[in-house]
Parts: sequence; C-alpha cells; structure tokens
Amino acid sequence: MLFTETAAEAWALRYGESSELPLDGLDAFLRHRSVRKFADVPISQETVAGLMAAAQSASTSSSLQMWSVISVQEPERRAAIAELCDNQAHVRDAAWFFAFCADHYRLSQAARKAKVDPKGLDYAEFGIMALIDVALAAERFTCAAESLGYGICYIGALRNDPYGVQELLNLPEQTFGVFGLCLGVPSGEERGRVKPRLHQEQVWFQETYDKDVSADEYDERMKVAYARRGLETTWSKHSGNRVSGERMTGRETLMDYLHQQGFFLR
Amino acid sequence: MLFTETAAEAWALRYGESSELPLDGLDAFLRHRSVRKFADVPISQETVAGLMAAAQSASTSSSLQMWSVISVQEPERRAAIAELCDNQAHVRDAAWFFAFCADHYRLSQAARKAKVDPKGLDYAEFGIMALIDVALAAERFTCAAESLGYGICYIGALRNDPYGVQELLNLPEQTFGVFGLCLGVPSGEERGRVKPRLHQEQVWFQETYDKDVSADEYDERMKVAYARRGLETTWSKHSGNRVSGERMTGRETLMDYLHQQGFFLR
Repeated sequence: MLFTETAAEAWALRYGESSELPLDGLDAFLRHRSVRKFADVPISQETVAGLMAAAQSASTSSSLQMWSVISVQEPERRAAIAELCDNQAHVRDAAWFFAFCADHYRLSQAARKAKVDPKGLDYAEFGIMALIDVALAAERFTCAAESLGYGICYIGALRNDPYGVQELLNLPEQTFGVFGLCLGVPSGEERGRVKPRLHQEQVWFQETYDKDVSADEYDERMKVAYARRGLETTWSKHSGNRVSGERMTGRETLMDYLHQQGFFLR
Repeated sequence: MLFTETAAEAWALRYGESSELPLDGLDAFLRHRSVRKFADVPISQETVAGLMAAAQSASTSSSLQMWSVISVQEPERRAAIAELCDNQAHVRDAAWFFAFCADHYRLSQAARKAKVDPKGLDYAEFGIMALIDVALAAERFTCAAESLGYGICYIGALRNDPYGVQELLNLPEQTFGVFGLCLGVPSGEERGRVKPRLHQEQVWFQETYDKDVSADEYDERMKVAYARRGLETTWSKHSGNRVSGERMTGRETLMDYLHQQGFFLR
C-alpha cells in the first residue's frame, strides 16, 4: 500500500486539528485522495469483476439499476476518450478506464417487454434517480478498490463533449455518460494528498440548516493547500471563479444534450 | 455482526451462480442490503462523526463540496419527517436519520464573499455535480457504516414533499433534500436479503454499449425474489410499472421545485 495514513492522521489532514474520536476501522475510508499517476502494473479482469460486483451491490431504488458502465481498454479508443476528456494523461495511462453512464434505455426496453409506455422517464425524478444510482455504484466500487490498495480518479471532463463520448462508445438514446473513472496501482511518484475539507459543523447540521456558518477558517486552511500547488487563492475565491459560469469547458450546453437523450424533460 | 455472508456467498445471491473469482477483502462491500428493522440500540455522536469524516473524504469536484446533511433526532421532528416520507416506520425508528441535501447555497455565499456572481450555478452541469457529490458522500458513509456492522436504508421518499421537507428543516434557497438515510444497529428481526442483480454482462460493457442484451434470465431470477414477498411479477413488469409515470407519489412536480430552488434552470 502506498498510502498509509491512519484514520486519525487523515482526520487531522481533513480538518486541521487532531481528534480523540474512536476511528477504528475507518482508515481506508478517510485517507482517500484522487490518484493521477499510475504505475505500469496491470489489474486483472477478474479483480475488476469483483469490484464491479461491489458496484452492483450498492443500493438502487426499487432494483431499477439505472446505470451502465463501459470499460475502455483498446489503446486507440482509450487515446480518443482521453482526448475528449481534456487530454488528461491519467485517462490514457490508468490500468482501466470506465465511463459510468446514467441508463434509462435498459428500463425502456423492460417496460416495452411488459407492454408499458415508459413515459415516467421524462420526469426530473427519474433523471435524479439515475444520477444517484450511478454515483452510489461508482463510490462503492471506489471504496472497495481503495480497500485493496488501488487508486482512482473521477473524471468530470467526460461531460465536456457528450456527443463525442456517445459516438465513441456507441451509447443509445436514453443514456448519458455522467463521469469517467480511472483505476490503477498508484505510482510511487503520486503526490496526491489527503485534502482539507470544510469543518463538520459547516456541512453537518443538527435538526435544521444553519445559514450563518462561515467559510473564513476554511479559506485560511485551503490557502496553504493551494499555495503548495503554486496558486495564490482561497477556497471562496477559487470556488467563486468555478461557479461564475465563465469557464464551462463545453458543459454549458449539457441541458440540450440531456433533453436530446430524454432526461429532465419535465 | 448480524450479516455474515462471505463475498463468494453474496456473489452467488447477486448473480444466481457461484464464482471462482478472487474476492478477498470484499465481503462487506458485496453483502449490502437495505435494513428496515433496527434494534433499540443507540449509536454515539462520536461514532457518527467518524462516519461523517468518511462521507467528507469522498471525491468532490474541485473541492466544491456541494452537499450538506441534516440529522433529525428530536422525536417530534423525526415523527414529522417520517410522515413526510410516506410514513415509513424505519424513518421513525432508526437510531439516526439524515437528510442528505444538494447545496448550492454555501457556494453562492462563498462566491459573494469573493465578489463573484455565481450565475454558473443555473446550469444543469452544476445540478449534476451537486447530485454526484451528495451521492458519493452518502455511499462512502454507508460503506464505512456497514464495515462497522451497522445497517442503513436510503429513503427516496424524502422527495415526495420537498416543500414540506424544506419547511421542517429550514432549508434555504439553492438547497434540495435529495434522499434520506436511516442508520442503526440491525434488529435480529431484519429479514432483508442480498438481492439479485442484473448479470454483469448486462451492466458492464467492453469498449462499446451493447443494445442487444436481454433481461429474460434476470426476469426469471427476480420472479423468485418477488414471490418471496408475495408478489407475482417479473423485473420487467415491476420496473415497467414503476416507470409508467402512474404512481409518482408527489414527485411529478419535482422539476418545478428544482427550478424554484435554482437548480437545472438552463
């Protein structure tokens, strides 16, 4: 295992203070970081099948299983999808790359087999359910992979060019590539750290939402983390720029694509 | 621990056939089931804090952390939220109940602090990011909880009456209760099983999507699982009825609510 922080050490890195809490058994869950440098070590199809069984073991509303995943291993197709994903080197270099998709197509076929018109899928509710299903599955896959010592990186850039992704992976109507996932053995050169997070009191509220929590303390902690990467900014500034809508990298047209594919129509 | 299936036993229950694959270390990830009968045993705030640190350790795009969670423990408020959630007894009886929320409000405040107009949050992209963030966090929480022997149940019925949930939990604009989560010690009376899933070949595609996979074999396996619950149906029939749009339990108006709260506007 390349990453060896205990849960208590990871807690200190997350929150900038030590903890007296009982954290036994939580090491692998707290030490997560995204891995972007992978060793040139393969992971067998059999191992991935075990992780996929973990993914499929996640909760899914009414057993609807509104997701699919495409693994992209052929070198040419992998290079093409890396290019669609903002040319990220780890998409090209990871032992495995997966495109996790929201999938209403399979369910539509099931409904037609049962002679039912699947017109409910037009509702936002069913788009939300598919997004929840695919994310729960991917995160159980991730937790299982990390518990075995592997590293992962989610790739939001899969949404930069959904039309290109659809063509490359032959995705049918009523599906949608939600995110990519790199899987591999972390390289000794990987420098990803356990990143600071908002304090629990800013995220976890007791009984009712508290509008008055402030990010000031977190801004100071994140300033240090950004400085390590050569950036002079705070969380509020960095996040503010991200949500300004100025740098959407193609994703400003995502609603049109969702509508074309039959999601969030009403 | 109430649930003791090995990963190999869980695999057989998922797929209806045994496996020769190496599944070491995956027991807790494969044996998940929703728990709806909880023992009358408390779980300490300290233990939940550890699980919440796991939740916060999940990946989040650009550290934006677009989610919040409200724990609902006061008996009156718990009874009220159980009523909003289709009167599900486990919502009332679980040691803990959490409302997991998509949260653009905190980010809006951060942007304003940085003197940036957060108009990007109107885009579907940022709604999708929030839904991914909240689901990844909840599933890491869940995997951590299950590894310690606790049981959970996701509650989609939190979306039945989003206006009522908003009022009860004092949720601000730009937030949205996505799902509930029950946490507790499983009761010896719990009869939840490891449920059958679609075969891996129906969910996991190599290189490109395959439109021709059939659910026939799964329909047969699920017929047995439904029969145990006194239902004479198949997966295709059951799922077809779910997506017909006939029984939306209030969720047919979710898009209006999302728009009111500032999600998926364009």
